[in-house]
This record gives sequence, structure tokens and C-alpha cells, in this order.
Amino acid sequence: MSSNESALTDISNLGEFGLIKYLTRNSKFKHSNVLKGIGDDAAVIKSGNGMAEVISTDLLLEGIHFDLAYMPLRHLGYKSVIVNLSDIFAMNAIPYGVTVSIAASNRFPIEALDELYEGINLACEKYGVELIGGDTSSSRQGLLISVTAMGRAKEDDIVYRKGAQKQDLICVTGNLGAAYAGFLVLDREKAVFQKSPESQPDLTDYDYVVGRQLKPEARGDIIQKLAANNLKPTAMMDISDGLASELNHIGRQSEMGVSIYAHKIPIDYQTVSVAEEFKISQTMFAMNGGEDYELLMTLPLQSFETLKSIPEISIIGHITEDKNQFDIILENGSVAPIEAQGWQHFSNAEKMDQETTDNQ
Amino acid sequence: MSSNESALTDISNLGEFGLIKYLTRNSKFKHSNVLKGIGDDAAVIKSGNGMAEVISTDLLLEGIHFDLAYMPLRHLGYKSVIVNLSDIFAMNAIPYGVTVSIAASNRFPIEALDELYEGINLACEKYGVELIGGDTSSSRQGLLISVTAMGRAKEDDIVYRKGAQKQDLICVTGNLGAAYAGFLVLDREKAVFQKSPESQPDLTDYDYVVGRQLKPEARGDIIQKLAANNLKPTAMMDISDGLASELNHIGRQSEMGVSIYAHKIPIDYQTVSVAEEFKISQTMFAMNGGEDYELLMTLPLQSFETLKSIPEISIIGHITEDKNQFDIILENGSVAPIEAQGWQHFSNAEKMDQETTDNQ
Repeated sequence: MSSNESALTDISNLGEFGLIKYLTRNSKFKHSNVLKGIGDDAAVIKSGNGMAEVISTDLLLEGIHFDLAYMPLRHLGYKSVIVNLSDIFAMNAIPYGVTVSIAASNRFPIEALDELYEGINLACEKYGVELIGGDTSSSRQGLLISVTAMGRAKEDDIVYRKGAQKQDLICVTGNLGAAYAGFLVLDREKAVFQKSPESQPDLTDYDYVVGRQLKPEARGDIIQKLAANNLKPTAMMDISDGLASELNHIGRQSEMGVSIYAHKIPIDYQTVSVAEEFKISQTMFAMNGGEDYELLMTLPLQSFETLKSIPEISIIGHITEDKNQFDIILENGSVAPIEAQGWQHFSNAEKMDQETTDNQ
Repeated sequence: MSSNESALTDISNLGEFGLIKYLTRNSKFKHSNVLKGIGDDAAVIKSGNGMAEVISTDLLLEGIHFDLAYMPLRHLGYKSVIVNLSDIFAMNAIPYGVTVSIAASNRFPIEALDELYEGINLACEKYGVELIGGDTSSSRQGLLISVTAMGRAKEDDIVYRKGAQKQDLICVTGNLGAAYAGFLVLDREKAVFQKSPESQPDLTDYDYVVGRQLKPEARGDIIQKLAANNLKPTAMMDISDGLASELNHIGRQSEMGVSIYAHKIPIDYQTVSVAEEFKISQTMFAMNGGEDYELLMTLPLQSFETLKSIPEISIIGHITEDKNQFDIILENGSVAPIEAQGWQHFSNAEKMDQETTDNQ
């Protein structure tokens, strides 16, 4: 570097998870009502009567988080609500309201924004939450959506990222890697379309993975089932950046180690087939793919029998006492360290650029 | 218009206040906890125990809402928090937390974002609120800030825009038009600087109005004084878009008329002097200037004596039964209709482009 070059620090230097933590390091004022601020899926606020409010916020920018070339506005509206509800569920809370702010350039007529709000309304109705506020603005370029979701739970029912205990079972819901498989397929079709606009994409064989990318769901059903079965996880978060990254959060915040089995990670056969097509290991899809909006949770060993009766939940490993252990046992029996690179692993993909994920 | 032109509707066609109302017209799901959704300064949520949570959100975009040519990042951070706290106070509630999401292009090194957060932290400390969450992202262009503020009040203490009764006194806090006067001065200096960058602006004579534009405060002190004097307004909102626009909201939502006196509107002498310099009527500054973040409230006639003892509050008129009455009595005694054009009145000013303000 020449001595004339600026000594200023580029945002990307702080890496994926560092930025918000760095920027807020001087935020000293602590309100006595705030049980949890930055650093979990959502903030938690004591509201008296043994109840707590839970709040999470997320920013979605065109060209960074979504590509309107293959993301219909209706789906985008739906997804922008879902990703926030997922954070509320991840605290073992029930969402009741969202605010949605949008900024749009004059490229978007009102009819386009109407489509966006159709998706927003659909998600609200399906999950029983009210659209309680928002702001609108013009923008110089592109479309931006900022969603804040609010929920509620008994203070004692809230589950944080910290709290995992040694020997706890590590569990995930649904299956992983599908949303990333869908992204790769859509991105390939976009490239084909750009070369020959007359071509008609046939996505029949990819319907499931494309659906997981375009229209994800939040696992409110799991929160209900946990309650119905008297299960309370010791730690929980949603899987938005890939299993590796989320395991790292739970391990680090709980000051525990992690050991999982590659062959136990639930992966849909369509995801497996896309992984083969793209010559990427299916485990990599699940570990680093992101955007699955499934739940990662840890539960005491004695929950084993009850967990077996909930088909949507898979046990993939256990928590260990050694906080430096962060292992995956591969299909051939060899042990490999889990790398928690989150989205950055796929740094060729535009959408992953410098995203940070604390409290989103 | 030629028949080939698109029949799509440009966002600006719906005008300043119409967009968010239009977009959310199909939001049918109502949650039983939500006492007020879209359409006031903040949403209000029942939290049991006779208490309510109050929440408001606001989007600030570079080139639309702020100009970094004269807005230092530290001030911008401060102001972005203040404008949201103002909405919480406007409900007669006390804020306790904010979430701040930012998107910044690589033009902003971390040191710049640090300055922004210095201002954010300063506002949080001064007003006793905690920075409880947020999201960060890169952006393709410019800087964007999305703030959500949360507060709390007894359910019975909440004051809405509706609720003004005939003969109620119409009151405002502080003085009006100063922030717009500051904006005009700064905008002029920017133009001078662009022509001759060596020129040094002398803003000594404009310190107060420039301060009101760059570093506004939210009137939490008034909320305390109202409580200390056992006063509860019948209607209230903050003055972010100009008195004319806000009177229109209160009148319309309360289904009442409005009559105010031009000479009773509190205006600082520096604002008067800028108005003279720019050859614009000082009343216009106060009525349509915006960004003052003072409070507009209505109180029963019997509060008159108590109000007189609070120097920060000025009585400027009264509520009338005729909901079509929307008058200002000018200095010469003539009666003129109040025009509620908000920011759009000054449509030459870039920052006012298509801003909508419900629930911000």
C-alpha cells in the first residue's frame, strides 16, 4: 500500500458478523426493561406480568438480498415478512405484528408495489400477524424493504442462543440446503435467459427447491408442537445463514462445543440432485447454503423419546463440554472441523456481499 | 398521452399521504392486541396489566431525506433517533428502545459509520433509550437508515390524533419554522460552496436555525410536564411535516374543524429574519416548513390557566364543531383557509420528493 492511500477501513474488513457488533460497541445505555439487546435472533423486553415482548428487524435490498429477475414481487413481499417472523419463532415466541417500510425508485409503478403488498398481506394472514405500521419513500435506485416484527411470550418461555448444556441433543427442523439449491437453479436460468431471451425455462424438476428459495415458510408449527409436547429447548435460533454459521453462534454463546454427523443432516432428494448437478457436496449446501428458515435447537438428552415422535425434527448431533470442539463426523467416519463461513463461503454469489446477520 | 404509453400509475400520483394508506388497504388481518395500527404517529399494542407498547418506524435515505454535503454523520445519527423518539412522545408514551438498520455503499469506511453511531449513541443516552437491535447491509448507492422506536405507557394515558373536542384549545410547543429556515440557509451555503470551494461559510447569524435543522430534539420534557400538571391532551401528534399538515390530520381524524391565529404561532426571531431574507412569509415557514419535531396538541378549555404556567406551550387557536372549517386568521384580521400541502408545497426542494409520513 502506498503511503498516499487512505488508512480508512473498508466495511468488508470486519467480516460477516463483526460489523454490527463493532458499531454498537460504544452503546452503553442499558434500559432496565431490556432482557436481551443485540446478539440474538431478536431483542427481548420485559413487559411486566411475567410477559416479554420480542422484536426483530431486517433489511432487504435489491441487488444485494434479492434479484427481481427471478423473484416475483408477490413472493418478495411474502418472504420479507417470513424472514422476520422466523426470528420471532426462533425465540420461542409468537409474532403478532409487523411494520413494513419500503423505498422504491420511479421504476416501480403503484401496481408493482401493490403486488409486493399482496405477498405481505398473504404472509400476515397466514401467520395471524397484523401489519401495524411502516413508512414509504422514493429511492434513487432500486427497491428496499425494511421489516420489523414483534411477538410475545412468557418471560420464562423465551429461548436464547446461549443456554446449550453439555450432552444436549442438537436438532434441526425440516431439511436444509434446499433454498440455496433453488437459488443456484434460478441463477443459472437467469444466465440462460440473458443469453437467449426466447428460451422457456423448465423448472418442473426443481419445483421444491425453487419454492424453498422463493416462498419460504417460518416454523411456527414447530413452536406449537414443542409447547404441546412440553419441550423447551435450552438454546435455539433460526437457520438463515447456513447450519455451520448458526452452530457457531450457539456453541460460542453457550460456551460449549459441537459435534454433529453429516449423514444425519436432513436433505431433500431434490437438493441432493441439484448438488450433484452443480458438483458441490450436499453437506456443503446444508452447512453453508442459508435462507432455509428452519430452526436449530438444543434439548436435554431426556427429550430423546419425545423428539422421536415429532417427524419434523431431526437429531443431528450433540453439545460437548470442550468449547474448542466444533466438529462434523463425515460419512466415512473421519472427523472434520466445521467451518462457519456462512454466506461468505459462496463469495461469488452477489447476494452474499457483506451481509451481517446479528439480530435479523 | 399517446396510446402506446403505459397505463401504470406513478407513485407520486397518490400524493404525500395517500401511498401507505393505499398500499395497506387490503391488509385485513386484525390482531386483538393491536389498539392502533397504521394511521397515527405510532402503533399501539395492548400488553396486559393496563399497559401498552407503542412502536414507530422511519426510513431516511441519502439524497431524499438528507444531504451529506451539509449534514455531518454524527448529527445524522442523532437526528435519525430523535425523529422516531418524537413519534413515541407524540403518543404521550415514554420510549425505551430503538433498533437501527443501515445500508451503506463502499464509499463509507467503517470510520464514517462509527461517526454515525456516535450520534445514535448520544441520542440514546440523552433520552434514556437502549439500542436493542438492527441490521447492516451493503448498498449499491448511498446511505440508508431505518429506525424503529419502542415505548410504553398506561393504556389510558395514550393520546391519539383523533379525540379533539369542540372548543378544545389548540397548542404547540417551542417555536415553528426554524428547521426549515436552517435548511434554506444550509442549502444556499452548499450552492455557494459548489461554485467557489475556497469560500468559508459564516453561519454565526444562523446558529439557532441551523441547529434546529441539524440537531433537533424530541419533546420528552413536555410529556413529563403534562403529567406533572395532570394534563392529558385530547389529541396530539408531532410536527414533522409542518403545522398545516398536522392540523389537517388532527381535524380530519377527530372529525372537527380548526381555527388558529397566525400571530399566535410561536416563531423565533432568527426564523423571522431568514424568512425576510428569502422573501417568504414567516407564517408559511411555520405552516409548511416541517422537521420541527415540536408537539401539536389539543386540550380542554378548562386547562387554560394551567397551560399558561408552562412557558414552552403556546395556545394558537381552538377546535370548532364544523368539520369543514379549516381556517387561519391572519394578522390583518382576514380569514384564510389553511392549505395542508406539507412538504409538497416546497416541491423544488429535493428532500421533499414523494415522502409519506403516516406512522413515522
